[in-house]
Amino acid sequence: MPRVITHIDRADLDLVSAFADVGVATTHEAQGRTGLLHHRLTPRQQATAIAGTALTCEVPPGDNWMIHVALEQAQAGDILVVSPTSPCDDGYFGDLLATSAAARGVRGLIIDAGVRDIRTLRDMGFPVWSKAISAQGTVKETVANVQLPIVCAGQLVSPGDVIVADDDGVCVVPRASAAEVLQVARERAAAEEEKRLRYAAGELSLDLNPALRSDLLRKGLLFERQ
Amino acid sequence: MPRVITHIDRADLDLVSAFADVGVATTHEAQGRTGLLHHRLTPRQQATAIAGTALTCEVPPGDNWMIHVALEQAQAGDILVVSPTSPCDDGYFGDLLATSAAARGVRGLIIDAGVRDIRTLRDMGFPVWSKAISAQGTVKETVANVQLPIVCAGQLVSPGDVIVADDDGVCVVPRASAAEVLQVARERAAAEEEKRLRYAAGELSLDLNPALRSDLLRKGLLFERQ
Amino acid sequence: MPRVITHIDRADLDLVSAFADVGVATTHEAQGRTGLLHHRLTPRQQATAIAGTALTCEVPPGDNWMIHVALEQAQAGDILVVSPTSPCDDGYFGDLLATSAAARGVRGLIIDAGVRDIRTLRDMGFPVWSKAISAQGTVKETVANVQLPIVCAGQLVSPGDVIVADDDGVCVVPRASAAEVLQVARERAAAEEEKRLRYAAGELSLDLNPALRSDLLRKGLLFERQ
Amino acid sequence: MPRVITHIDRADLDLVSAFADVGVATTHEAQGRTGLLHHRLTPRQQATAIAGTALTCEVPPGDNWMIHVALEQAQAGDILVVSPTSPCDDGYFGDLLATSAAARGVRGLIIDAGVRDIRTLRDMGFPVWSKAISAQGTVKETVANVQLPIVCAGQLVSPGDVIVADDDGVCVVPRASAAEVLQVARERAAAEEEKRLRYAAGELSLDLNPALRSDLLRKGLLFERQ
Amino acid sequence: MPRVITHIDRADLDLVSAFADVGVATTHEAQGRTGLLHHRLTPRQQATAIAGTALTCEVPPGDNWMIHVALEQAQAGDILVVSPTSPCDDGYFGDLLATSAAARGVRGLIIDAGVRDIRTLRDMGFPVWSKAISAQGTVKETVANVQLPIVCAGQLVSPGDVIVADDDGVCVVPRASAAEVLQVARERAAAEEEKRLRYAAGELSLDLNPALRSDLLRKGLLFERQ
Amino acid sequence: MPRVITHIDRADLDLVSAFADVGVATTHEAQGRTGLLHHRLTPRQQATAIAGTALTCEVPPGDNWMIHVALEQAQAGDILVVSPTSPCDDGYFGDLLATSAAARGVRGLIIDAGVRDIRTLRDMGFPVWSKAISAQGTVKETVANVQLPIVCAGQLVSPGDVIVADDDGVCVVPRASAAEVLQVARERAAAEEEKRLRYAAGELSLDLNPALRSDLLRKGLLFERQ
Repeated sequence: MPRVITHIDRADLDLVSAFADVGVATTHEAQGRTGLLHHRLTPRQQATAIAGTALTCEVPPGDNWMIHVALEQAQAGDILVVSPTSPCDDGYFGDLLATSAAARGVRGLIIDAGVRDIRTLRDMGFPVWSKAISAQGTVKETVANVQLPIVCAGQLVSPGDVIVADDDGVCVVPRASAAEVLQVARERAAAEEEKRLRYAAGELSLDLNPALRSDLLRKGLLFERQ
Repeated sequence: MPRVITHIDRADLDLVSAFADVGVATTHEAQGRTGLLHHRLTPRQQATAIAGTALTCEVPPGDNWMIHVALEQAQAGDILVVSPTSPCDDGYFGDLLATSAAARGVRGLIIDAGVRDIRTLRDMGFPVWSKAISAQGTVKETVANVQLPIVCAGQLVSPGDVIVADDDGVCVVPRASAAEVLQVARERAAAEEEKRLRYAAGELSLDLNPALRSDLLRKGLLFERQ
Repeated sequence: MPRVITHIDRADLDLVSAFADVGVATTHEAQGRTGLLHHRLTPRQQATAIAGTALTCEVPPGDNWMIHVALEQAQAGDILVVSPTSPCDDGYFGDLLATSAAARGVRGLIIDAGVRDIRTLRDMGFPVWSKAISAQGTVKETVANVQLPIVCAGQLVSPGDVIVADDDGVCVVPRASAAEVLQVARERAAAEEEKRLRYAAGELSLDLNPALRSDLLRKGLLFERQ
Repeated sequence: MPRVITHIDRADLDLVSAFADVGVATTHEAQGRTGLLHHRLTPRQQATAIAGTALTCEVPPGDNWMIHVALEQAQAGDILVVSPTSPCDDGYFGDLLATSAAARGVRGLIIDAGVRDIRTLRDMGFPVWSKAISAQGTVKETVANVQLPIVCAGQLVSPGDVIVADDDGVCVVPRASAAEVLQVARERAAAEEEKRLRYAAGELSLDLNPALRSDLLRKGLLFERQ
Repeated sequence: MPRVITHIDRADLDLVSAFADVGVATTHEAQGRTGLLHHRLTPRQQATAIAGTALTCEVPPGDNWMIHVALEQAQAGDILVVSPTSPCDDGYFGDLLATSAAARGVRGLIIDAGVRDIRTLRDMGFPVWSKAISAQGTVKETVANVQLPIVCAGQLVSPGDVIVADDDGVCVVPRASAAEVLQVARERAAAEEEKRLRYAAGELSLDLNPALRSDLLRKGLLFERQ
Repeated sequence: MPRVITHIDRADLDLVSAFADVGVATTHEAQGRTGLLHHRLTPRQQATAIAGTALTCEVPPGDNWMIHVALEQAQAGDILVVSPTSPCDDGYFGDLLATSAAARGVRGLIIDAGVRDIRTLRDMGFPVWSKAISAQGTVKETVANVQLPIVCAGQLVSPGDVIVADDDGVCVVPRASAAEVLQVARERAAAEEEKRLRYAAGELSLDLNPALRSDLLRKGLLFERQ
């Protein structure tokens, strides 16, 4: 039978929040190029980055009942992660649910389906990453799991995991490895700053990293004048 | 043979125009969750809502001749609704046709195909909902129906029906039921305002509507501490 | 074996740059409705038009090594044109490569795949037309061709060809016909200005071009009052 | 409220059945290239052609209750035409429903969604045209319309219309024009037989129809030796 | 770092093999409509059903090295389950790998990517469910995980889980619940046989299950003569 | 202006025909993993392999006139390669054109669009690789190029090039390199036969090619018992 798990362990919120500055691309790289949700989840606003703890919610096709149930489980700092049990683009979430979610401290919505009232969501500043924008209404007839591990857009998300979302998409970091990944991500970001300065000055990546160039010849790449 | 119907009945324009404030999601709900065009028709601008009477136009693939014919049938308050006779993404409509349409009082374009000159269309403030943006040019060789009922993006649209379009997509309301749907939509919008205040204050939908909660148990949803 | 061609002929840069004002739709029409890349290549910014000479680069799926190689071949005025050897949406290009490209005078990126760090790219003003936005990281393991003719999004692009890109998409003009196409495009643009004024005044295209109307009857289109 | 219409007029069954021999492509041409459902509806068997009267059925996403309701309305010679109220690929129909449908004289299924138990359906000889094969189960919670006009895969289908389906796809013919369309279709088929013999003997279409060739020159086609 | 787990626990092979008779649809229903892989994984042969234990394998885009590594871990009764780390349709698997897999007792391949040499695979009787058929060759450059839990076509698959695949698609059953699910599935199949006989005799589902009919009225469905 | 090139050089027909035995996958590998058309071109029959010389034909969307023109240019051993000037799935080609093509020695059709009368085409044994099956009819209004280089499904095809097509898809080999590619392909096929025997006997690829195994460790792959 479908279940709602009412007490789950969340990653530490200060730690979690720090991922917003690091961003999706760097986080994804820092954990060995894993955890990226499929890019069909598109940001529905620009220049917005958030990080929070996953509040997971399964929904049947065309049925948003469980989102109402999930909001009762929300804590400040959560990000609502919704996945349909079979592919669906209906408009599961609109301005009323966003109002309720924001009032309970939810930082945003990740949904492998559709949302509606998108203009109001933008005006409210409630950020959304979704597969579709669709006004198609839903019913409240069938129960499903809340706060259990789900697959969302190709990635396993467990309740309390770290969710990072920005203009590049959405990434999940398992709760247990959050501190380590953040550390690696910050080191990577620092190293990139140094490279950026040299690139901006006109240096080539092939010269910053000579192995990049010598390996080309070893692999047989030919340089010709035509 | 293809035909152009030169005199059609339109829904009352004051009534029609009022739908722009109600919006697509509420209109769709108010008529029993019907009438929504497929969300592949994407708004090509933001924060724009229009309503008007359908001016329907069939086009062969890669052939925009009939749009020229349709514009002669336009009246102030119309919205041009274009559907290809087989799927096509070509750029049927650009800044010149938009100039002509706007000059004749057409409020916008709904097209299950492509448009071009999109930057100019945005600068002009001529709103478009389309399946694609494509510069691909079209020919003028084959005739088709204008102002007859068409299927556009999965919905039947008859000439003179109400078209509502905003950031959430596009909805059609049959002319005969426009007044009734508007009434229901306004009542629904008013009821939502009340809910919004309570949600903003932190109340849960499960508490506003106790049946939502009791039905969960009847359906067998389990609440566990894990 | 894969090759890098180190000296190629480019279209004249003054000539090339003039295409940015003409734009994609008019250029495409001026060369007989040819040269348009598939509209899956979407502009990742708004109200931006560029023109430049093609710097062509093949990449294996999930491997961006050759973009590093291509940047060494860049000259001021180039536009980087990247095509994967099999379909891939990974994030081949981000803010570091954009910094390097901009430092070397590259005007923008056309890629039939994904990019990342899109917020930074927008902030930098480095324009991109891509099939996807994806943070998915890539490797540097396999060599491929640089500055050889490639098919990108359905069009053949040779090194040194003219690339025009704006809000409508991307068009390629062969180097040899660039001067002639620009001339035709400018004449077309001038003729359109004249039409625009008459349309804005409420004239119909069917009246500006009487053949458009008489041919309708010849083709059998019927006008009925219903 | 959703409704079931219990008595509808059907096209004459002898007339209807004759369309199976004519086939989809010829029927579609005979009514002016109209009535073709989108080719995403794929035959799930080979070398099978059927024709019958439309038994129309709307279904909510993930909910097949109304198919059970529709079967009570079935008459011998009907073809069940099912369209979801929002896009869905779930497995609405399997071997049990097929057994029931066949027992009541239903000739096949047209569904803009998924089916399952496909191996058994093939073994039973119950023909299906569907958008997907999916084992995904459905619920029985929400009512919808049965035997009202629906849009299925882009075409308007009214109860009692003629449905023709074969290896090329599915076509609908309005009940009122069935006799006339059949007549035109048969004439077209006869004319094609004559052409086929001449083509098989090596004659060219450009020679059978000289206008095809002369028009080429008028349109400016050039013949060159290179 | 990527890892290969060399000793994993597998579900009991007799138990596993019994799922082939039960089939995908019934298994999926028996575990509460869960476990179904996305139907983009299409059977590449007809009338074939298999069940086995999951041998899981991640592959980078365009790189099939890890499949070679996975085959060393194969045991008789395994089914190879391959998922790319980012979406890819390349031809990862052909007749040589199939020969090797079959020699080691592998019962089939589930791959969310492409295969090639499909004619030979069919002739060999080596069954495949794949997202694509593509001859596109791959490299052997980058390592990834073997025999760790993966997400394949939207479902979590752990090494040693039960995989069931037939003409309806692919379903995964967690190892721990295999015995229980098989039991429920067999009961369900038996109950369906009884229904089938009554349907074949012309009885309606609405009459076999009266609640199906009475609930219709409670939900407000109207029956009208039009 | 559009042109028909009436005399083109073709690859030697004996040489060309030999590619049918080699097949698409081996040919593609033999020319450095190039030349594969996108796998959206699906074989519409099973267990069929052909090779021939490309007869290239552009078609406007929804317009098959140029196919009639192309057939006049056909020679025995040709394969008709058709590409629309903008994406289109209409049914450009049916049993009459197939009859004419077969009568003139054309070996099959490659089309990045739709075909119809597919049952008859199968019965005739006229092989087709297409993007779609669709009965949608086309017009004869607009001219386009015949026997000029075209891009078809992502590959450049020049008149007289070698086309190889089988159950794995379609590959193009430039005329100039046909003899060399055939030689490499045959050597590759012979080498594969040897491997196949060893795999069938249970040997592992990792043991046949020890570098495959040692490189794993160098790349950091870990083997663990869990």
